Amino acid sequence: MTETPALASAPHIIVVDIQPTIECGEHPVKRIVGDVFTVRAVVLKGGYEALGAELRVQRPGSDSWDAVPMRYVYEDDQWVADVTLDTIGAWRYTVAAWTNTFSTWRTEIERKHAAGVDLSSEMLEGANLLRYYARHAQPGARDSIMAYAEAIGTASRDRAVAFALEARLQQLVTQADPREDLVVHEPPYEVWVDRERARFGAWYELFPRSQSPVPGEHGTLRDVEGVLPRLRDLGFDVIYLPPIHPIGRTNRKGKNNSLAPAPDDVGSPWAIGNEDGGHDAIEPKLGTIEDFDHLVATAREYGIEIALDFAIQCSPDHPYVREHPEWFRRRPDGTIKYAENPPKKYEDIVAVDLWCEDYPALWQELKRVVLHWVEHGVRIFRVDNPHTKPLAFWMWLIEEVRRDYPDVFFLAEAFTRPNLLHELARIGFSQSYTYFTWRNTRIELEDYLEELASPPGVEYVRPNFFANTPDILHEYLQDGGRPAFKIRHALAATLSPTYGIYSGFELCENVPVRMGSEEYLDSEKYQIRQRDWDAPGNINDFIAAVNRARKENEALHFLANLRFHRPDNPAIIAYSKSTDDGGNRVLVVVNLDPASPQEATVLLDGDALGLGEGSTYVVHDLLTGDRYTWNGLANYVWLDPATEPVHLFRIEAP
Amino acid sequence: MTETPALASAPHIIVVDIQPTIECGEHPVKRIVGDVFTVRAVVLKGGYEALGAELRVQRPGSDSWDAVPMRYVYEDDQWVADVTLDTIGAWRYTVAAWTNTFSTWRTEIERKHAAGVDLSSEMLEGANLLRYYARHAQPGARDSIMAYAEAIGTASRDRAVAFALEARLQQLVTQADPREDLVVHEPPYEVWVDRERARFGAWYELFPRSQSPVPGEHGTLRDVEGVLPRLRDLGFDVIYLPPIHPIGRTNRKGKNNSLAPAPDDVGSPWAIGNEDGGHDAIEPKLGTIEDFDHLVATAREYGIEIALDFAIQCSPDHPYVREHPEWFRRRPDGTIKYAENPPKKYEDIVAVDLWCEDYPALWQELKRVVLHWVEHGVRIFRVDNPHTKPLAFWMWLIEEVRRDYPDVFFLAEAFTRPNLLHELARIGFSQSYTYFTWRNTRIELEDYLEELASPPGVEYVRPNFFANTPDILHEYLQDGGRPAFKIRHALAATLSPTYGIYSGFELCENVPVRMGSEEYLDSEKYQIRQRDWDAPGNINDFIAAVNRARKENEALHFLANLRFHRPDNPAIIAYSKSTDDGGNRVLVVVNLDPASPQEATVLLDGDALGLGEGSTYVVHDLLTGDRYTWNGLANYVWLDPATEPVHLFRIEAP
Repeated sequence: MTETPALASAPHIIVVDIQPTIECGEHPVKRIVGDVFTVRAVVLKGGYEALGAELRVQRPGSDSWDAVPMRYVYEDDQWVADVTLDTIGAWRYTVAAWTNTFSTWRTEIERKHAAGVDLSSEMLEGANLLRYYARHAQPGARDSIMAYAEAIGTASRDRAVAFALEARLQQLVTQADPREDLVVHEPPYEVWVDRERARFGAWYELFPRSQSPVPGEHGTLRDVEGVLPRLRDLGFDVIYLPPIHPIGRTNRKGKNNSLAPAPDDVGSPWAIGNEDGGHDAIEPKLGTIEDFDHLVATAREYGIEIALDFAIQCSPDHPYVREHPEWFRRRPDGTIKYAENPPKKYEDIVAVDLWCEDYPALWQELKRVVLHWVEHGVRIFRVDNPHTKPLAFWMWLIEEVRRDYPDVFFLAEAFTRPNLLHELARIGFSQSYTYFTWRNTRIELEDYLEELASPPGVEYVRPNFFANTPDILHEYLQDGGRPAFKIRHALAATLSPTYGIYSGFELCENVPVRMGSEEYLDSEKYQIRQRDWDAPGNINDFIAAVNRARKENEALHFLANLRFHRPDNPAIIAYSKSTDDGGNRVLVVVNLDPASPQEATVLLDGDALGLGEGSTYVVHDLLTGDRYTWNGLANYVWLDPATEPVHLFRIEAP
Repeated sequence: MTETPALASAPHIIVVDIQPTIECGEHPVKRIVGDVFTVRAVVLKGGYEALGAELRVQRPGSDSWDAVPMRYVYEDDQWVADVTLDTIGAWRYTVAAWTNTFSTWRTEIERKHAAGVDLSSEMLEGANLLRYYARHAQPGARDSIMAYAEAIGTASRDRAVAFALEARLQQLVTQADPREDLVVHEPPYEVWVDRERARFGAWYELFPRSQSPVPGEHGTLRDVEGVLPRLRDLGFDVIYLPPIHPIGRTNRKGKNNSLAPAPDDVGSPWAIGNEDGGHDAIEPKLGTIEDFDHLVATAREYGIEIALDFAIQCSPDHPYVREHPEWFRRRPDGTIKYAENPPKKYEDIVAVDLWCEDYPALWQELKRVVLHWVEHGVRIFRVDNPHTKPLAFWMWLIEEVRRDYPDVFFLAEAFTRPNLLHELARIGFSQSYTYFTWRNTRIELEDYLEELASPPGVEYVRPNFFANTPDILHEYLQDGGRPAFKIRHALAATLSPTYGIYSGFELCENVPVRMGSEEYLDSEKYQIRQRDWDAPGNINDFIAAVNRARKENEALHFLANLRFHRPDNPAIIAYSKSTDDGGNRVLVVVNLDPASPQEATVLLDGDALGLGEGSTYVVHDLLTGDRYTWNGLANYVWLDPATEPVHLFRIEAP
């Protein structure tokens, strides 16, 4: 008899469809420390035998596996188990399954006993089975199991059945179970566990050079400390700084992206490097590394974290250009190529070639730069245009950095095609800028958020909804004025657990460099802009109230819990978020028309909120303090953008 | 400088999301010979370089790979290619991608030329690039490419641009392309290609012993030849025979599953084996192996294929019991166990233990049995209760059989939990019985069909909609009478490309053994039943007309093209199928209420049918020959079950 290898190694049990996983386990799914991680699997064996299954979990840095028993949940071969992810880092998990021979026998006994048929042969089988288990048991349990075997093999039918069903026997047998047909799904999957800030946080982007309280003076890192109280009061968690490094002089950009700068023009911070140093240096006008350390420490006292930009391009004056000419792309005449995206040119920067011949040396240097800032207390990096660099570089860099610093995370500025945005998230970026700024109508917002909040994306893409950036002043804000800024802030802050604004948003700055452009007039990218933070028309109080509501309402800390409701007016959008236990329920209703009052009957999805046609409940507006008593699932709203275009309701008992 | 392995082997290009695939490539997707197989992939590289991609295809039995260029289809990094699967068997496919350096350069030239900027440096780069390509070119092309290099490096700007954009150069370069950064997705995926009958066919199940034209006589295989003309005229493609092997005598079942058989009772054909032989023998009363060969050949002349049952259980009198006692489960007293599913007992069969100690010998013997019938011309096996046998056994057996006989396919009788049904389809069964018989209302049918016709299931589960079986006479048929039989026949035959009926359906036999049972009274499983095929009330003409429409309308040969429409009466269901080119469009409207006439305005999904609000078209009823001119997307129907409960429309030009 010839045995084929497949025949000899045929598995008795098949484990399929382990969830959650992405891309066949090629990359980890993502969770936050403290999350209850629910794993499901389908376990199949032809025939009618009872099976057993367990989730196996390997904690970060551990070599051993913990077992969590899985529950048989559906009449469809599905098993489930939960584990609390109580530390950050890379966890691994898989599913093991086996034939539960004792349970198979016990079920047969129960069914036949109920049917009143003869059991003598079955009891002899049971006694044999227990003797087999006894051989696999610990010495203490062995005698007990043997005693059951003896009793079941010899007692009267009813007494034998009673013995067979005893809980004590079940317990002994579970411990002794040799787990026939054991299979373990290989290879294991991975879940990367971040700290909470990777999912939930309010970001604020500012240029340190604009922060001097003295009119006309170049601001410093010390000056940034001066704005911390204000940002703390507004409720921000993260301050993101554009590059703070020395700025190149060659082809420095003047105001409004001019190619003819004035002598005192400060240039774009993204043109990194000059004779004062490169990516690991600080622009001397901003201060020293000691000032930076001091800022990080002071911010921490305010509960605020400093995030840095990581932008790989160099000014032509960067030390790398001199010390490592082999890292740059060259023209046939031997000169270094400027960065360009024809017909656009970036005359003040040259492009590093991340696939140059000695790319490993370049990659190691860039890792050194990141670790330099990590060692100075930076744990969040906003990465400039990651989609123009090798995917393999990010995969490698993020893994290298997080091996020793699992609390570091990276935000991808990837305003690029969706599949590339998704791949950047899959390979390790903890957060992603998204297309939120370009989604303004109700249908656009609902479609986009339903995509973001659904599998598989929700397992690995964490959106960071910036309502504006130094590059993006959307037409909606340009045209809609102050109500538009409130609307977009509330949407960003309540649709996504993480969101951000860039300085001046709170002042409703809305003048573009020209009609049809999303660039700001007098863009801070090229000049210092000092502001009166209490100028008339500011929305400071609104922002503070929204951020307070975010902090106080746990439902807003999540994305997958987002549900849309159905106002009967397309200018009004309504959505809710609830905690798993229903203990916190937030309902947001927004008038998307910044020009006119709008009214609607909001038809609620009762299942999403645990409400019914007969429910009476209070909707408590966390922005105004107003409380309304609502009945049933259809209720009226009227929202005037001139006063308050947003209801941010908590649903409370009447 | 320490290089980590990941760093040194970093890929430049990433290929993800190759579609179609199932279970991460663990099992093949399925297609039919002649299908155009469309493969999509996402190809990603950080940066702005142009890429190239090709589908690589390995034909069954070949060691080499054919390349099919992929087209860039969307602005989202997606590539697509089609290949016609022109032979049955296991095809393999994967995707290769590379950096298209020449195209990157040419695009840069085009954009900069349009922007009017200096190109001298770019032309020198281009000349260098072409010299590099020339080194990789065939000798004949080398000189031509070198001539272009010379011309582009020295000509005036406009002439150089013209050279750069010449189609001839593109052609030369494409052939010489050294394909920088080439990656090939590993391992390759597989698509199993069946012959057409695996997707499209009308099945008829009959018991040969009931086919004698002489009242009271045991029918033979020769008698089956006598019914071929009738079944050909009804339009059937496959005749499926329950087991034709010798039937056991020990505990033989009597009429209506009685445990006290009369001496002349014929027993259940599923109690296989007696002193006349086992699974490779023919019940002597049915005839000889020569008769079987003759039947297969005669049927083939009628365009009909004979499918056999493969049921692994044995009667206690089966030769295996004596010759291979080690293949059976035993009780502690050493006797062989009867099959049971407590409290149900199958006293006339004993269960083979497919995981017995020497299971490889048993599996090989079962393979021998299958190949025995294959060598006698059988190419379709209907497998009895595959879910009670090891999944690994089926995976092995089907692969072994199809290695030499790729035209063989297997239908799984798996009335079990959905995940197990799906796994049986994934591991190699070409067709599956489904839950169709238990889906009778419009919502049940729509939900179930939308599941079957959608990915991932549609890539591997091929339904075979039996409207009845010897085990299943659904209450809907018991209660609904003749109209119910027409309704269920039309649904089975037009919803699924493959469907079947069991003898007597055409006579609307609807008497259960008792109230609440799905078993037939005087079930043919236990006795001979001779029938008058022209008895009053038969639906022969209806079945013939439906089968004719199936054959003549290619749209009905597919499942994934199913679209539901919206009649405004829940008792009426409407759906359509169209060929890809829209050349054949079928619209089916069925009154699901066998008791009363029902009317509806049918609102059509215009996109699914290429119709608009302003369209005028003819709906031609292929059952009655009636033609109606319809306008727009909302039209009235009235269906009286007493006359014709079904419209089987072809949509035609007015």
